[in-house]
Amino acid sequence: MMNRKILIVFFLGWAHISPAQSLTDVQSADEPLMLQSVGSFYLGGEKQSQSISELGGFSSKGQVTINQMYVNYMVPYRRTDSISFVLIHGMNLSGKTWETTPDGRMGWSEYFVRKGYPVYWVDQVGAGRSGFNQKHYNLVREEQVAAKNQPAFQRISDENTWINFRFGLEDQQPVQEAKYPIGAVDEFSKQSVPFALFGLPDPNPNYLNLAELAAELQQTVLVSHSQSGRFPIEAALLNPEGVKAMVLLEPGGSGDDYSDQQVSALATIPLLVVFGDNLENETGIAGHSWKTYYDAWGRFVQRLDAAGGKAQLLYLPDLGIRGNSHMLMQDTNNQQIADIILDWIKDNK
Amino acid sequence: MMNRKILIVFFLGWAHISPAQSLTDVQSADEPLMLQSVGSFYLGGEKQSQSISELGGFSSKGQVTINQMYVNYMVPYRRTDSISFVLIHGMNLSGKTWETTPDGRMGWSEYFVRKGYPVYWVDQVGAGRSGFNQKHYNLVREEQVAAKNQPAFQRISDENTWINFRFGLEDQQPVQEAKYPIGAVDEFSKQSVPFALFGLPDPNPNYLNLAELAAELQQTVLVSHSQSGRFPIEAALLNPEGVKAMVLLEPGGSGDDYSDQQVSALATIPLLVVFGDNLENETGIAGHSWKTYYDAWGRFVQRLDAAGGKAQLLYLPDLGIRGNSHMLMQDTNNQQIADIILDWIKDNK
Repeated sequence: MMNRKILIVFFLGWAHISPAQSLTDVQSADEPLMLQSVGSFYLGGEKQSQSISELGGFSSKGQVTINQMYVNYMVPYRRTDSISFVLIHGMNLSGKTWETTPDGRMGWSEYFVRKGYPVYWVDQVGAGRSGFNQKHYNLVREEQVAAKNQPAFQRISDENTWINFRFGLEDQQPVQEAKYPIGAVDEFSKQSVPFALFGLPDPNPNYLNLAELAAELQQTVLVSHSQSGRFPIEAALLNPEGVKAMVLLEPGGSGDDYSDQQVSALATIPLLVVFGDNLENETGIAGHSWKTYYDAWGRFVQRLDAAGGKAQLLYLPDLGIRGNSHMLMQDTNNQQIADIILDWIKDNK
Repeated sequence: MMNRKILIVFFLGWAHISPAQSLTDVQSADEPLMLQSVGSFYLGGEKQSQSISELGGFSSKGQVTINQMYVNYMVPYRRTDSISFVLIHGMNLSGKTWETTPDGRMGWSEYFVRKGYPVYWVDQVGAGRSGFNQKHYNLVREEQVAAKNQPAFQRISDENTWINFRFGLEDQQPVQEAKYPIGAVDEFSKQSVPFALFGLPDPNPNYLNLAELAAELQQTVLVSHSQSGRFPIEAALLNPEGVKAMVLLEPGGSGDDYSDQQVSALATIPLLVVFGDNLENETGIAGHSWKTYYDAWGRFVQRLDAAGGKAQLLYLPDLGIRGNSHMLMQDTNNQQIADIILDWIKDNK
């Protein structure tokens, strides 16, 4: 598909403003996008009464909502079938993960819609437009809670990202046949936002919110990434109604802690795990090894298979596809990866 | 325009999940939406080196980006003319403000596109997907900064919202001819997210980001709301290039501090200020009085007029339109209000 620039004029005469590479590079497809609907909603959440201190001092005391989840959606004018996709981002990121790539190409939120599937993409509770419970921080400010008990906001440095997301095996040194758009790594840096994971209640409220979303949509493929790897499984264990399949993109952690009974219950739902390239070469950082996670989820796939499930662990180099990063959905061959997933769903649903 | 439900099945058999009023109420128009493009980008921002403590302990030290602004956009397949709209939300909220209303009707982000205008809607730096500088909070956790110096996260309680946003003049008591969708006030509560206003540098980086966006888009109408009231003015003072008009919806604060020289410079740009109903009756809360702000911006309009500008202060009851709240863009007559603004722009651009 040919692309052309949409945006009109880049004002060059104003040198003290940094150039907006991101805006002027934004591309659009030749074919218009025909939507049945586009928009957003929140779901889940509960009320909590808070004091003036907890609210930050501006408002009078009263109720707020916590643990709600923000959901973007686009529904195509013509649907392929009854399947919908729900896309769940990873740590430090937001629903932006799935939108226009850092170098201005089409993201999966649009690509899946152009393939005829409704797409719902969320901000995790604790990130972006879902927000977080600010009282944990304001009570420290008011010296009602000890500073050391304040949950840390997680953020990943660009240098860490380079290696941990396998743009390179060393900082600023792209991997061979790198598929991440290396010229746009500084744009990707802007997508990193503070992550309030450690201020969330246990169990993580995202599980229940995703279970609810799938049960309402029906015929849902839950797609997770990295830190959200196990979210589709947790949602399906809460309520399998509506979960048609699960796709785990470069999931972190492992599924070793699920019981045989849980694995049996999950085996009715097809599951695909996808990893990019360079797992053998990764240097590892901050205690993280994607090779370790790959091996762990391989064990989980084997347990699902043994329980009669349809499960597959896909390492892209085994298909001859080289150089993919941790951010598969933003790599330059992101449409190729999407097509592989769509084909797998068609064959295994 | 007739509306119909898009969403398929609401799973009723699962009682311990709260009903997702927001999802099942989501409506879509009969006519498909034809887009040239849809997506998002970031603009602005600068690099900052941070320690492991500042990053929250998970990542190795290194650079992150701060003060960048997240921008959603939709560009219609057929444009009315060369004008674009930029929509800027108020305190405690995010770009969600302009999307699907809490009771599932079409928001302005879609309505303006259906009228043939490209729409760009942002998250303020300090909110939602733009994020904030988490180091101010993590350094307190590490006891490197005193807790009392930690910036407060602002949040407004539902009870405060009822009165301050003039859904009612008292909590739970809707105003006469209320235009806010009163049954969806609990859904609106979910849109309230922590606001990191007091952790931002001075001047507010949103001004420069908006100036850059307008300069790149050209022929831009900057639309602000409430706490962001003066943002279009600040952006235009930084760079008037590309600012075609300014619309201030229920702006807070005042313009009294702008110099005569600044007012002269601004008088070349048409400006419309719009307020809802019940300014005479408001009870005021937390030191805020929209009547006071209305009077202040009336003075500013007079100064612009005296300097040869095209400026208007519009109080909707003067057009016979009653019951509008502070959230004009979500009120049940939000399309009527949008049409008034679009007509004003056509007449005064």
